[in-house]
Amino acid sequence: MKSDSIAMMDHPGKIQNKQDTVCIFGTGDFGRSLGLCLLQSGYNVVYGSRDPKNSSLLPKGSKVMSHAAAAHEAHVIFVAVQREHYGFLNSLASDLEGKVLVDISNNVKRGLYPESNAEYLSRLIPGATVVKAFNTISAWALQSGGLDANRQVLICGDRADAKQLVVDIAQSLGFTALDRGSLRAAAELEDVPLQLFPLWRLPLYIATGLSAFIFFYVLTRSVIYERVTNGKDIAFRIMISLANKVFPIVSLVMLSLCYLPGALAGLLQLYNGTKYRRFPNWLDRWMLCRKQLGLVALAFGFLHVLYTLVIPIRYYVRYRINAYVLTLVKDNKTYEFDNTAAWRYDSYYSMGILGFSLFLLLGITSLPSVSNSLNWREFRFVQSKLGYITLLLCTVHTFLYGWDRFLKTTSYKWWMPPAYMLSLVVPCVVLILKLILITPCVDRKVTRIRQGWERQSKILVNCRDTKTSHPLIA
Amino acid sequence: MKSDSIAMMDHPGKIQNKQDTVCIFGTGDFGRSLGLCLLQSGYNVVYGSRDPKNSSLLPKGSKVMSHAAAAHEAHVIFVAVQREHYGFLNSLASDLEGKVLVDISNNVKRGLYPESNAEYLSRLIPGATVVKAFNTISAWALQSGGLDANRQVLICGDRADAKQLVVDIAQSLGFTALDRGSLRAAAELEDVPLQLFPLWRLPLYIATGLSAFIFFYVLTRSVIYERVTNGKDIAFRIMISLANKVFPIVSLVMLSLCYLPGALAGLLQLYNGTKYRRFPNWLDRWMLCRKQLGLVALAFGFLHVLYTLVIPIRYYVRYRINAYVLTLVKDNKTYEFDNTAAWRYDSYYSMGILGFSLFLLLGITSLPSVSNSLNWREFRFVQSKLGYITLLLCTVHTFLYGWDRFLKTTSYKWWMPPAYMLSLVVPCVVLILKLILITPCVDRKVTRIRQGWERQSKILVNCRDTKTSHPLIA
Amino acid sequence: MKSDSIAMMDHPGKIQNKQDTVCIFGTGDFGRSLGLCLLQSGYNVVYGSRDPKNSSLLPKGSKVMSHAAAAHEAHVIFVAVQREHYGFLNSLASDLEGKVLVDISNNVKRGLYPESNAEYLSRLIPGATVVKAFNTISAWALQSGGLDANRQVLICGDRADAKQLVVDIAQSLGFTALDRGSLRAAAELEDVPLQLFPLWRLPLYIATGLSAFIFFYVLTRSVIYERVTNGKDIAFRIMISLANKVFPIVSLVMLSLCYLPGALAGLLQLYNGTKYRRFPNWLDRWMLCRKQLGLVALAFGFLHVLYTLVIPIRYYVRYRINAYVLTLVKDNKTYEFDNTAAWRYDSYYSMGILGFSLFLLLGITSLPSVSNSLNWREFRFVQSKLGYITLLLCTVHTFLYGWDRFLKTTSYKWWMPPAYMLSLVVPCVVLILKLILITPCVDRKVTRIRQGWERQSKILVNCRDTKTSHPLIA
Repeated sequence: MKSDSIAMMDHPGKIQNKQDTVCIFGTGDFGRSLGLCLLQSGYNVVYGSRDPKNSSLLPKGSKVMSHAAAAHEAHVIFVAVQREHYGFLNSLASDLEGKVLVDISNNVKRGLYPESNAEYLSRLIPGATVVKAFNTISAWALQSGGLDANRQVLICGDRADAKQLVVDIAQSLGFTALDRGSLRAAAELEDVPLQLFPLWRLPLYIATGLSAFIFFYVLTRSVIYERVTNGKDIAFRIMISLANKVFPIVSLVMLSLCYLPGALAGLLQLYNGTKYRRFPNWLDRWMLCRKQLGLVALAFGFLHVLYTLVIPIRYYVRYRINAYVLTLVKDNKTYEFDNTAAWRYDSYYSMGILGFSLFLLLGITSLPSVSNSLNWREFRFVQSKLGYITLLLCTVHTFLYGWDRFLKTTSYKWWMPPAYMLSLVVPCVVLILKLILITPCVDRKVTRIRQGWERQSKILVNCRDTKTSHPLIA
Repeated sequence: MKSDSIAMMDHPGKIQNKQDTVCIFGTGDFGRSLGLCLLQSGYNVVYGSRDPKNSSLLPKGSKVMSHAAAAHEAHVIFVAVQREHYGFLNSLASDLEGKVLVDISNNVKRGLYPESNAEYLSRLIPGATVVKAFNTISAWALQSGGLDANRQVLICGDRADAKQLVVDIAQSLGFTALDRGSLRAAAELEDVPLQLFPLWRLPLYIATGLSAFIFFYVLTRSVIYERVTNGKDIAFRIMISLANKVFPIVSLVMLSLCYLPGALAGLLQLYNGTKYRRFPNWLDRWMLCRKQLGLVALAFGFLHVLYTLVIPIRYYVRYRINAYVLTLVKDNKTYEFDNTAAWRYDSYYSMGILGFSLFLLLGITSLPSVSNSLNWREFRFVQSKLGYITLLLCTVHTFLYGWDRFLKTTSYKWWMPPAYMLSLVVPCVVLILKLILITPCVDRKVTRIRQGWERQSKILVNCRDTKTSHPLIA
Repeated sequence: MKSDSIAMMDHPGKIQNKQDTVCIFGTGDFGRSLGLCLLQSGYNVVYGSRDPKNSSLLPKGSKVMSHAAAAHEAHVIFVAVQREHYGFLNSLASDLEGKVLVDISNNVKRGLYPESNAEYLSRLIPGATVVKAFNTISAWALQSGGLDANRQVLICGDRADAKQLVVDIAQSLGFTALDRGSLRAAAELEDVPLQLFPLWRLPLYIATGLSAFIFFYVLTRSVIYERVTNGKDIAFRIMISLANKVFPIVSLVMLSLCYLPGALAGLLQLYNGTKYRRFPNWLDRWMLCRKQLGLVALAFGFLHVLYTLVIPIRYYVRYRINAYVLTLVKDNKTYEFDNTAAWRYDSYYSMGILGFSLFLLLGITSLPSVSNSLNWREFRFVQSKLGYITLLLCTVHTFLYGWDRFLKTTSYKWWMPPAYMLSLVVPCVVLILKLILITPCVDRKVTRIRQGWERQSKILVNCRDTKTSHPLIA
């Protein structure tokens, strides 16, 4: 039996901790949800409240006391109170001496206060150790078993031991904890729940701007031109025909914008002769939102597909085909089959379908759970190799759409070239740059640079360290 | 060298545990898989078997003994035996005194026994501590490295120290552990692997009922009416035309049912003047399955899209168009272009495509891995704002489909209005409720209530606590 | 205050560890990224470098020393150096005595060296304990907060205590650790980042082979046959018409190949009278890539859908329809409506759409994050029940496509049957096998076998153990 008693005691810290009491200041939604979770995980929970008698909504098994009394019961105190009410903690300074205060607060807006809530709390109660944590977790995530909510608790604070106590609590509640450094990181953590798709901003601005430009361009070339020149009103074409010009163009341009920074970065490394010089800021920011650029492009591509497939059930299209047949009947003309046209249109559709399908595959592999299950080599293969093939297919699709039209002067209305021509500029630039980068001699240089080599003139200084670079990030 | 020895010893508990011996009663698939995993993670594994000599299938490195002998080797014993065979443990009661028994069993059906297997085990061997765990993990998840299987071990039990031992083992095997409270939760845990989409039930029942109703409604209005009135057999229309009336109607109604409870909850909070009064049960249950309602609606919407896109390749449609052209030729009629019809149909398709695309976006963001990567504000933005825009677009799409038909008496067959009209009732109610809720004065009240404020009469009691509510769940 | 001091001290190991110093040999990208993460998590970081003065790129707060001096500072040393340069460690053997060396290296290609890098390192410095870890993590995953990168650190090594130290570090950095056994597993771990979709190989080979075969088959039957017999050039049909024969056939065959091994396994178990005999290797490998087979089939099915929906906007199709109408006009024929054709085509499309939609549902549930949230029963329900319904719908779809053509001799060109007939062979075999397996008497036997029963002759030996089999894997 002796071995048993040892086994039961071999986690003295953890077990004691489990039976430990945790205090929560504040009986709002978050405080109540947190208390319930802590109770379920075996902690004793004590609420500190200004009105300890009013505890009707608190979870069963918890105790409610005055703030001071509650603080004496526990070593770790969650401050589930809004920043504006931190003031009352001043009077408890002596009770909080030596305690670990967990600041879980958020703000309603960014930049409301010069310093983060956690740093403010730390300044208020210098005798306590403040740890910022749990502010990125919603009361809902606490309540639900949590399969479809974020389970990552971001933590920061100045003392490792205090942080470890909070990490242990987070893990007991079934969360994973990620240490984000000292309390100075609190401002950043407090901004996390206030963010609204920060990485999607730039791509969405680009998409909106591009869409507006292309829309007015094709509006001028078709509706306005037709009105001015022939006096005909074809404004109804805005709903589908024009939209279906805007979507593919924006999609193609944004897809190529997604690969342009990579190509530029390669050229820059080639020019610098090293990968250890930082990229300019705009390139860095551009590189960071490539995934979002690509997904916005995919969304526009998807719209293009639906708008195209809906063509044959449109009233206007049916009218035109029937009217054409009636003309043929009236004029008693014969109807010749054009073999070239058959090849051209079928290839055009085929390239489009293949391009879109590959594009969709890229989109699927960028889903977090899918990309997590790929290793680095697989991820690069999909996003780089398949990505360029997608871009190539979509570019060829656009060229086949144009066919020989760019040679015909009739297609230049008011000297404005058809919109699809504009859309080909960026993809062609990207494809040419890529072609340069994959020529054997250039490719060898770039690969060497990415493996850590530097141009002769600098090797004098760095050569020995570069040998240690890790192949994974080559 | 001294610092080393300290560092090597600074996890006395964990390390000892690692070299600890774990016992497994039962040599079935699960017992074998578990043993293999434990061996790979550095544990010693001892199997308890009635027939210790027959150990051909057991993992290499494990030992097999009689149950009593095996029990003496370890402190933690996994009982990988079906409940019906727990009886034999009775005779081992003295050997199991003080041990931690991990009950991993499941039942074949729900409600077979009045008490959970784990509680039964605990009653059988009162001298041991029973922990329920691992029952939600399949042998397959144990064997596979486990990237695409659930890695969350649910644990419950009455003693924190015993649970912690099991948590440690689970973490060593690469699982995350979630404490679900006392042993009374075991019944719930044992039901988890027997559930078959519990949250999908209600939405699927609603979808089936609605589909059946709408199907018979449109069947009466078209096929039966035509048969009775004109004696014509158009039953072939069931396969696509009727189906393509049922799908969009069910989709639209279910999409609006997905937003109705939120609007009702808002009204109720407004009426109650507080968010601290519980919603009625039916509303709670309705709110819980909103995601599933929405996804079923999306599935029906997807079917609607495919059934619509397939229209122009249908035999019947081609026949009708060609027959129409032939009539025009025969009657030598001219074919007038209707500008209004062009606008109407194109807008109708355009709204539908945009609505469906946004709907798809909502669907994608409800994938667990995507919604996990959103913060609360982003999730609300997508599911609430974009959700209402989707509902609005789809409702407009349906109105454009009807156009002026609801004014024409010819569209009321046997006094039954066209089915699309029925489908508009719920969405319009939801949109009107939402419109009321977002008018500035009402919105201000609701926001205040959701931030924890209560109406004057109650503030006397609660006002101070409500200040502490957490903004995240506002 | 006493309780506080105890609480602060109750993790002596962990806390000491946190303030521990970690040494990194090598100042390449990975070394730098790792150092930054360690610093953020509260470790002291010391770099060992041959050129300690050149530390411009190292993270702030770290120290740089000679290798020997750095080794003395810490107990755990990360060797972020490429294998080719391990030689220099020889001279440090005495400094590394008793240390834990973490080998994080990867190779550029598989099979470059006879032994794994970690085992080589262990042989070089026998006095140190080598742990293989972090090689599956990219520098990028270290730098990014890491929501969309793999956060699982695979670890192997011969000493449990040394592994535990690395596990603790990994967890402090926000990773989950998975123990993969002794250092002999290092070779396997070093291959992980070099893998390029190993499970996708076989399905992709099958898809490519099948596609090529079907393509040449239909090419012969249509384009070449037409050229030889009638001298007409219909090569333009390759782009869409032929492609749209290849895609559905490959999709259907691969979908059925996905269910064939399960049926074969059932028959084999029935034949063997036990589930405890191993399947032949080819069946095992086949069973393992069923998911990938299914997803490739889905991709081909998706292409089939797009190629089908694009039909009515094809030049050739419009030409044929218009030409047909013109002929009707010229010949003054009447155009009869064929009710059977209407039923047939509509059913054909309807089955196809429903089959594809269910197929898509199967695809969605195989996304890692979705399948993780299903329990075993739900997963089986979707992948097995819904899977067979999908196969049935798609097979019926193909039969409806053929209709009565297989009776007509004109459809056998050069005695070659239409390609769709070939595609029906495997699905029909699978469906018949399944039908046999679900007849009540066979089903009862299979279920009993899967629950662990064995045929009478063997029960003499095994009967008692089989009772312990876990119902989950039934």
